[in-house]
Amino acid sequence: MRRVDKEYVREITSRAEDYSQWYVDVATKAQLMDYAPIKGCMVFRPYGYGIWERIQGALDPRFKATGHQNAYFPLFIPESFLQREAEHFEGFVPEVAWVTRGGGEDLAERLAIRPTSEAMICHMYSRWIQSWRDLPMLLNQWCNVVRWEKATRPFLRTTEFLWQEGHTCHASEEEAEEEALRMLGVYADCLQEDLALAVIPGLKTEAEKFAGALRTYTVEALMSDGKALQAGTSHNLGQFFARVFDILYLDRDGQQKHVWQTSWGVSTRLIGALIMVHGDDRGLVLPPRVAPLQAVIVPIAPQRQREEILAAARELRDTLSGSYRVQLDDREEHSPGWKFNEWEMRGVPVRIELGPRDLAAGRVILVRRDNGEREEASNRGLPGRLGEVLDAVQDSLYRRAWAFTEKSTRVVRDMAAFQATLEQDRGLIVAGWCGDAGCEARIKGDTAATIRCLPLDGVVTPVSSALGEAKGLPCVHCGGRSGRPVVFARSY
Amino acid sequence: MRRVDKEYVREITSRAEDYSQWYVDVATKAQLMDYAPIKGCMVFRPYGYGIWERIQGALDPRFKATGHQNAYFPLFIPESFLQREAEHFEGFVPEVAWVTRGGGEDLAERLAIRPTSEAMICHMYSRWIQSWRDLPMLLNQWCNVVRWEKATRPFLRTTEFLWQEGHTCHASEEEAEEEALRMLGVYADCLQEDLALAVIPGLKTEAEKFAGALRTYTVEALMSDGKALQAGTSHNLGQFFARVFDILYLDRDGQQKHVWQTSWGVSTRLIGALIMVHGDDRGLVLPPRVAPLQAVIVPIAPQRQREEILAAARELRDTLSGSYRVQLDDREEHSPGWKFNEWEMRGVPVRIELGPRDLAAGRVILVRRDNGEREEASNRGLPGRLGEVLDAVQDSLYRRAWAFTEKSTRVVRDMAAFQATLEQDRGLIVAGWCGDAGCEARIKGDTAATIRCLPLDGVVTPVSSALGEAKGLPCVHCGGRSGRPVVFARSY
Repeated sequence: MRRVDKEYVREITSRAEDYSQWYVDVATKAQLMDYAPIKGCMVFRPYGYGIWERIQGALDPRFKATGHQNAYFPLFIPESFLQREAEHFEGFVPEVAWVTRGGGEDLAERLAIRPTSEAMICHMYSRWIQSWRDLPMLLNQWCNVVRWEKATRPFLRTTEFLWQEGHTCHASEEEAEEEALRMLGVYADCLQEDLALAVIPGLKTEAEKFAGALRTYTVEALMSDGKALQAGTSHNLGQFFARVFDILYLDRDGQQKHVWQTSWGVSTRLIGALIMVHGDDRGLVLPPRVAPLQAVIVPIAPQRQREEILAAARELRDTLSGSYRVQLDDREEHSPGWKFNEWEMRGVPVRIELGPRDLAAGRVILVRRDNGEREEASNRGLPGRLGEVLDAVQDSLYRRAWAFTEKSTRVVRDMAAFQATLEQDRGLIVAGWCGDAGCEARIKGDTAATIRCLPLDGVVTPVSSALGEAKGLPCVHCGGRSGRPVVFARSY
Repeated sequence: MRRVDKEYVREITSRAEDYSQWYVDVATKAQLMDYAPIKGCMVFRPYGYGIWERIQGALDPRFKATGHQNAYFPLFIPESFLQREAEHFEGFVPEVAWVTRGGGEDLAERLAIRPTSEAMICHMYSRWIQSWRDLPMLLNQWCNVVRWEKATRPFLRTTEFLWQEGHTCHASEEEAEEEALRMLGVYADCLQEDLALAVIPGLKTEAEKFAGALRTYTVEALMSDGKALQAGTSHNLGQFFARVFDILYLDRDGQQKHVWQTSWGVSTRLIGALIMVHGDDRGLVLPPRVAPLQAVIVPIAPQRQREEILAAARELRDTLSGSYRVQLDDREEHSPGWKFNEWEMRGVPVRIELGPRDLAAGRVILVRRDNGEREEASNRGLPGRLGEVLDAVQDSLYRRAWAFTEKSTRVVRDMAAFQATLEQDRGLIVAGWCGDAGCEARIKGDTAATIRCLPLDGVVTPVSSALGEAKGLPCVHCGGRSGRPVVFARSY
């Protein structure tokens, strides 16, 4: 019954052979996660949770810098609350887990485990907001949520997952719209800067928007198998929840008015995006800014010089660990070559080799995970040089993600080309769409591709040149007049 | 139905009049929390959650510095898992919330919402640990847990609460014991340094220990109403869970052996301790290190100088906010006096007043929340001086907590004195105890006081001199030979 992970370190299915299996191999063998003994649930192992901690560390200060505060709302939502917002709630009903017993008794009212917290937070907002002086109210919550999913996949779709959900109230529609777009910008910025993802910010169609929202904005990213992933969303909720939950404020003019709201979230599925965007057939590749380990030191020591080299390696670790997340792999039971493979598989951005000749020459060898490049670095200049190499890896991963997305984007003019492109090239399709929900639904029915987004104007992304090329094209489905070109793809 | 908090800012019940109501007044009116529309659940408002973020910020680096990593395990625990560890589980059964439906169907097996995670984590450990090389395994988790409590009180006892739970595996009993004591020391250190609590670390009796543990250690703190609070616990779990969950490792000698384990945790009840240890009749008093706001700037501006003073106040805020958590209260609808009261009630450690004469003299007035002391500080030396004042507040709160605990500790020699002390003086009682569970149970039955702990030898605490005085006293209940003096109290 016991798995002996170590013997299987190198046995990762290639992406070409079976992409799904490759994904699961990387997630489990890099020790990002393990399966829990509950259907659809997973354990975040320290190496996977460490990535989430880095993502939190990248996002949370950005939330605070834009005026938000963190709070924490209950895990449970009474059923009657959810029923008040039927339009929103219906979408979640099939996915809800229900608590029916507590304290040894059947509960008078069932409690939903939050699939999202609009209902609870809006209820509290109706108590806390009285006047225009209380606005805007800008809260965020880091928490777990539960959605009972039929088909699950590590990080991407699990029964329980971790996320943040921002919930804000404003005095006007314009302010809510500004906020929704501001937070979409925060996501785009963080995903590009820290996760090295090349994202496409845009608007969801009516069919794809969040239930109850006026407008849903999204950041979409292309995975290396050619499918898109919705990496984060930001909703302008209008006054839907404010009306359902009576969130009223006394305005300057003496009138009681409903607030305007937003909500926005990203989740641990971002870890899935990191795997699928940057990983290769040898395993995980992590961007240095979110890597729990930025560099690993592997001593290469013949027996007679073992102590001497280990001592130097320890000194090196101590020097570097003030500025970087560094580990010394001093395990005796494994050869250096075995360690190289393991740390490559686990995606550590830089390997630092230290052997007898290096020691004599007062240098180390730096090896980049992303492209395998090796270089000598003198001990004296090392802390600085390592920083430069890490920056180069970060930058290079972002450029590569951008280039891949750009070259995987095709402009198509009719459904035959649409179908052929999906089968042969996969990736993103930029095409005209008349704006009709019927065309959208039929394309989805015929091809399993959905409109990922209507890209925002004025934002340069990997699909910008395709959008320019597609300008004015008729609807790819009905041939009718196109409002604007949109991005289609199959997705996770 | 709407509460208008603002009109009630100053209406805090005095501690002498009704301590429980004072506590609830402070918790709600300082906007630390609000009641949720679910029995026993509360909302952590930003100001309360901000304290928790500071506590996390104080503890998490200490956990990491002692070699621990964070991970995340599922919210749900299958019923069959809990039944495997019946001895441990029985204590939790009455408090468990059960999920019986998910995804529109009744579940084949009910799922408990974790009241604590030993069962789940030990199951995973049995998969992850194979060899002595995998030890020690040192994990921690920050999460929510649920215990269906009959009587609840904000922060101290709520159906859902937030905590961290450390879970470790070791190769020997000695290492596990060392770890349990190390983490108790980490708690004691953090609670003293950052929360300014004067804690008494000690051993729980068999009757009071964690179900399934070999030994439970605790840090106890005395609240201002004379009741003790268990502020954190660290358990040497021995091999109980290792046997139940088959956590075996192959030792150097080729033998399969069960690991030795610990678990340890502190929760959001620490926020309750902060309220009850430092608060006074005017409201909350927060130690600067965990205060979400360390200083508030209140401009005192006659109408004609309003803009001038506000500009200076903004400059001051910008100067200070690089080093401190500072807020400028520039609300127009409230007078300076009203603001003074509100920020005192909310426990901000230092108020900074800036009026016309201060502006002219190039200075501000600093007012300490803990003792009301005012001083002038020149703008030039301000950032440094504010730091000194904050340090002085932190230090003074700790000394005060220590002195209060010391003077509230009585040595008693017989049950008559025991009873009289509990009624008149409350506080901690140091007395001899023969070690018999019968004596312990009868004292609890007669007085509602329990043995809070057997204080650790060699640790100087506010009860040290009482312990010295009580050395060699016979058992306070039966008059039999005492093992060592112990600490009794009524408790939360």
